[in-house]
Amino acid sequence: MIQIGIDLGGTNLRAAAFDDGDAPRELHREPVGEDRSPAAIVERVAKVVERLAGDAKKAAVGVGIAAMLRDRRGTVANSPHLRWRDVPFGALLGERLGKRFKLGVFNDMNAITWGEAVAGAARGARDVLAVYVGTGIGSGMIVDGRLVEGASSCAGEIGHVKVRWDDDAVPCACGSRGCVEAYLGGSYLQRRIARELNTKRHSLAVQLAGSAEAVLPSHVDQAAAAGDEWALTLWTELAPLLAIALGNAIAILNPERLVLGGGVLAHAPTLLELVETTLTVVAPMPSLEPLHVVCAELGDDAGLVGAARLAAAL
Amino acid sequence: MIQIGIDLGGTNLRAAAFDDGDAPRELHREPVGEDRSPAAIVERVAKVVERLAGDAKKAAVGVGIAAMLRDRRGTVANSPHLRWRDVPFGALLGERLGKRFKLGVFNDMNAITWGEAVAGAARGARDVLAVYVGTGIGSGMIVDGRLVEGASSCAGEIGHVKVRWDDDAVPCACGSRGCVEAYLGGSYLQRRIARELNTKRHSLAVQLAGSAEAVLPSHVDQAAAAGDEWALTLWTELAPLLAIALGNAIAILNPERLVLGGGVLAHAPTLLELVETTLTVVAPMPSLEPLHVVCAELGDDAGLVGAARLAAAL
Repeated sequence: MIQIGIDLGGTNLRAAAFDDGDAPRELHREPVGEDRSPAAIVERVAKVVERLAGDAKKAAVGVGIAAMLRDRRGTVANSPHLRWRDVPFGALLGERLGKRFKLGVFNDMNAITWGEAVAGAARGARDVLAVYVGTGIGSGMIVDGRLVEGASSCAGEIGHVKVRWDDDAVPCACGSRGCVEAYLGGSYLQRRIARELNTKRHSLAVQLAGSAEAVLPSHVDQAAAAGDEWALTLWTELAPLLAIALGNAIAILNPERLVLGGGVLAHAPTLLELVETTLTVVAPMPSLEPLHVVCAELGDDAGLVGAARLAAAL
Repeated sequence: MIQIGIDLGGTNLRAAAFDDGDAPRELHREPVGEDRSPAAIVERVAKVVERLAGDAKKAAVGVGIAAMLRDRRGTVANSPHLRWRDVPFGALLGERLGKRFKLGVFNDMNAITWGEAVAGAARGARDVLAVYVGTGIGSGMIVDGRLVEGASSCAGEIGHVKVRWDDDAVPCACGSRGCVEAYLGGSYLQRRIARELNTKRHSLAVQLAGSAEAVLPSHVDQAAAAGDEWALTLWTELAPLLAIALGNAIAILNPERLVLGGGVLAHAPTLLELVETTLTVVAPMPSLEPLHVVCAELGDDAGLVGAARLAAAL
């Protein structure tokens, strides 16, 4: 059966058709666009699916969506990206597509994790923790070869693990304080970099970026690698927070593979090295024995192959 | 098939035979004794099994052992209680028992968790986190109806989740610092109580216990409930640490049932209430929605029925 994977993100709607194997027969990308009403998005996704399916009698369609789901039927509890709350997306799309398509809706982190497991950095591993540090921080888990979705489909919220709870713990958009995402998630990190450089402009990171306003986490990383004091202080504060969140998850899950990915880590090798070094101190020794730490391999394509494969297996 | 459950702890060897249902046909208890050599323990367990099995043609035997396992064959990586390191316990016991018995060796926390799931506080739940605060702190997890054992059979090490990593984080016997067990595990807690009361003897807890040396966590709890300043200060420091460890695990696992048990919590209702209240603040809101927090129901028997059932299902 033909398999179609959809990645419905905050900016782009991406799609791929797979006949078999992991390489897509056809790739598709379009902007999500301004009209984000459920009806408009459902129609847009359905059109892409129908085009990719061609005249196939039957197709499996997996959608990875940047949203917090409420159940296994693809009900979106909340998606800041799509500005949705309590939208029965799976039911609406299923109805629109009809019986020709076998539909599954998955959290995007879960689709990505499954993609890395079937065709990427976690190939062959039965117990996997995948953590992505991009704009936010998310994760996916595989236990004994099966995806972990949780009782209400919101397992893997490692971004909202608390790493500080003193009076100075920073506020997080989730309404709580001290979440690891509020320290290392790209959007928070970017704001903090701007704020700190606003009062202190002597970092090498500013030279590398051209101006204080243009400094990205990747510039901080290069500056830290070159020994810049401000950059090193920042990384030395942040790396243990991520390492603690990872180490504690590893103590609980005992995975054999830890996949690290996402835009922030992909462009911050110095930070990544600090995190990995700290991890060897803060995770329990027996949990470290079977563990291999690897970088995500498939980038944006992981979610496409993962969603397609998950839907096919439904 | 007759099912036999064994609980091989640090002090007692307990056993039960189940014909069907959850109520044991026969219960057995003896001290583990002084000779803790693998050969002696294997012989002792085998004798109990053979007696309980009677003339049954075939029996399933599940052993829950207070040990860190290395694999699914019951190899003990480390058991401080039994003073074992790298003992192929499952292989030795299986050889001694012979083909008449279908043997499974499980971590005691996993056996207990499974017992609560099949016959106790987690009955009917498919996603469970069970945390026991006794002498140490341990946990078991069930994801989508299946026990989580981890890549090297040491999943659930919530006792060694780090809740402090500043310079004052207390040392833990595991070699690390800041583990939640080193704050709330009974043996650590008891020592801290003794140390603090050694210099400060004005707590109501001392009156309740008769002397400073006799103060148990349960006395501290009664004193805290009565408004004793020292007791309240201690509980107010410790409750958030356990709540953070629980809340972070819940953020990751999204269970529908959190089972709390173990000797310390069973006799400290005030502490338990503080922990539960704090949990509602530190766990992500969406993860709290499906969650029910319950107390363990089966006590010591959970491990017997859990080990028996796990072995029968092998």
